[in-house]
Amino acid sequence: MDQEPLNMTLQVAEPMNDINTYCTKLGKQARTASRQLAASSTGKRNTALLATAEALISNLDKIESANHQDLVAARDHGLTAAMLDRLTLGEHGIATMAKGLRQIATLADPVGSITDLQYRPSGIQVGKMRVPLGVVMIIYESRPNVTIDAAGLCLKSANATVLRGGSEAFHSNQAIASCIQQGLAAAGLPKHSVQVLETTDRAAVGALLQMPESIDIVIPRGGKGLIRRVSAESQIPVIKHLDGVCHVYIDDSADTEQALNIVVNAKTQRYGVCNALETLLVAQSRATELLPQIAERLQTAGVELRGCPLTCSHLADITTACEEDWYAEYLAPILSIRVVADLTQAIDHINHYGSAHTDAIVTRDFSNARRFITEVDSSSVMVNASIRFADGFEYGLGAEIGISTAKLHARGPVGLEGLTSQKYVVFGDGTIRE
Amino acid sequence: MDQEPLNMTLQVAEPMNDINTYCTKLGKQARTASRQLAASSTGKRNTALLATAEALISNLDKIESANHQDLVAARDHGLTAAMLDRLTLGEHGIATMAKGLRQIATLADPVGSITDLQYRPSGIQVGKMRVPLGVVMIIYESRPNVTIDAAGLCLKSANATVLRGGSEAFHSNQAIASCIQQGLAAAGLPKHSVQVLETTDRAAVGALLQMPESIDIVIPRGGKGLIRRVSAESQIPVIKHLDGVCHVYIDDSADTEQALNIVVNAKTQRYGVCNALETLLVAQSRATELLPQIAERLQTAGVELRGCPLTCSHLADITTACEEDWYAEYLAPILSIRVVADLTQAIDHINHYGSAHTDAIVTRDFSNARRFITEVDSSSVMVNASIRFADGFEYGLGAEIGISTAKLHARGPVGLEGLTSQKYVVFGDGTIRE
Repeated sequence: MDQEPLNMTLQVAEPMNDINTYCTKLGKQARTASRQLAASSTGKRNTALLATAEALISNLDKIESANHQDLVAARDHGLTAAMLDRLTLGEHGIATMAKGLRQIATLADPVGSITDLQYRPSGIQVGKMRVPLGVVMIIYESRPNVTIDAAGLCLKSANATVLRGGSEAFHSNQAIASCIQQGLAAAGLPKHSVQVLETTDRAAVGALLQMPESIDIVIPRGGKGLIRRVSAESQIPVIKHLDGVCHVYIDDSADTEQALNIVVNAKTQRYGVCNALETLLVAQSRATELLPQIAERLQTAGVELRGCPLTCSHLADITTACEEDWYAEYLAPILSIRVVADLTQAIDHINHYGSAHTDAIVTRDFSNARRFITEVDSSSVMVNASIRFADGFEYGLGAEIGISTAKLHARGPVGLEGLTSQKYVVFGDGTIRE
Repeated sequence: MDQEPLNMTLQVAEPMNDINTYCTKLGKQARTASRQLAASSTGKRNTALLATAEALISNLDKIESANHQDLVAARDHGLTAAMLDRLTLGEHGIATMAKGLRQIATLADPVGSITDLQYRPSGIQVGKMRVPLGVVMIIYESRPNVTIDAAGLCLKSANATVLRGGSEAFHSNQAIASCIQQGLAAAGLPKHSVQVLETTDRAAVGALLQMPESIDIVIPRGGKGLIRRVSAESQIPVIKHLDGVCHVYIDDSADTEQALNIVVNAKTQRYGVCNALETLLVAQSRATELLPQIAERLQTAGVELRGCPLTCSHLADITTACEEDWYAEYLAPILSIRVVADLTQAIDHINHYGSAHTDAIVTRDFSNARRFITEVDSSSVMVNASIRFADGFEYGLGAEIGISTAKLHARGPVGLEGLTSQKYVVFGDGTIRE
């Protein structure tokens, strides 16, 4: 089947003579669509989401064929098993995408809500109205399901989208894009509400990143290399998620069972994720008691431990951590451990070496808990909970388009609200300023 | 008195051999101070604000001397009367700065408030905590009172500040900085909480804009040239306020008196401000009735009118507006007027030619008001109120550090809340992720 030319992919394989002309046109179309989306009803946008879900299911064969075409090419190019796995959709994957869209349709519409409306002494009423950002560009790597997640969240929040997936998933993404077009048409929404780039030419990304007049925000999803490149090049604000160097600090008064459970869960529940534990900090007063128990549980699970000199004095069989270990995002069964004098040293360590992603304290002390959440400068700070909870779904955002480690605009898991902004609305009765 | 060397200025006139070393040190000091401020109490920060106000009053003579020194130099350099006026502090100006600080002290502390705290099915509680941005750099031009306004708002919101005022106000700013230091010392807050650059070398600004590790946000306050230069150079996010090309649209159903009052107020209450009226849009159905009345009122006030061809057909004595007029921020007694077919054309005009600052509709029609506030993509949208209300004080923010025309983070007048961000807080009871 993979040799048979697919209509869907043929339709989009138009010659790309001039990338700049193509990108300028695409940007203008996105801006126009964003104006129409901003004025569209919640109902229409939900209709488009549900109709896209339907289209995914009814076009299952076509999507699988396109995905198969990508997989054959990927194997020819010698992609690793892990990359092939990320690229593979399959019937279950397609059903999951459809389910995701239906879930997004059930979420509350963030757009248009007016809050804090109050009278001022002048007689005007002032409030804040939640509005879409406008045009969101998302640049991602191999997983084609991101096409649906991203388009779905942006559509729900009334943003137009420009999507640039991995070149290895080109045919899969085009097949999915065709389903989105069916969904938009069914709801009577502009077809340029969601535009999936019809070229894999990298120059297109470069050109689009210079178009702040057409695109309001860029979200790169993928490895650090991608994120750094996009941030360096972009003239458009970027919601970026770089490292997840996350900590758990076991305080003097920590409950032993809670400490052990949280450390084991945070380190071993999944290794390759940004909210996994990378450095454990243990209060000196608890080192003798806790370090051997922690080491036993983690080493049994196959985790390599690297410790500060004090940690090594308690655990004879581990290697000594070097300076780089404290900055490391292992994303692997490796953990660095440091014994700290007290809460102050723990906070200083986290603010110095951490990546401002997610950090937790295990404690029974109220004042220390209060200090930790105030003084640790991270996007999520936790007390007596596993840092693995740092996630849009777990936080009740309904879905997540990324996790921001920046301080401005959105910080931490970014859901629908993070895809919106607020403007002021003022109501008067012919009111003028004296 | 201006020839007598001032202690305050002598103290700071240290040789600036290596700008980069100086800026790096300053940035690190700011970062350290920001950590301490984030952990400081509301009470201490208020004490510092009130003690600075006291210091301003008790050092009145010294500040006036320093200001005099700047004024003499400015006159020698041939600054315009308007610039000299902006530079002049005087007893009243100093008292006003002290009053401003006392007002900031009375505002509610935005930092530390936890909102939306709710239980999740997993057993964790998730909420959002308001936190300072960290280190705020403010670059401004001649007015030395900005030193106090900016330092006061940042201190209240627990941000460390790096301030770079106009070189023509150098001595005034250093004298004010000395009062801030007295205030910080009185409250036991770190002296590097507020750092006023001790050099007028432009290279310092360039160096600081490359230090995102030390500075979290930059706010340029001044002319468009300054803002464009800072935005182009900065590696740090910028809260910027570019043009204020603001509109009033008189809808078919507008009340005549309201329309006239709002137009006259919006155009003539002050000319040189960003929220003044620059383009008036009039529904075609009301042109014959309203244009002569508007013209009479505005021309009596000395306003030059420039109209579209239809407007000119009603007002014989005015000039025809050219394409650039629709993009113009006159900041002067000039108004461009366009007759539009309907609400749709008005919205299209505003979104195309406007600067997304502030725009108003005058109408009695509920649906049109609803459409206008939804579809006009500006930081403030108003119904039956003068656009001159777009202002932090009028909106009840207590104070304002600038008006943002960007969509991310803060949009519209930026008060204390705009100087903060939110992080997630998670509370558990040894809760782990399954």
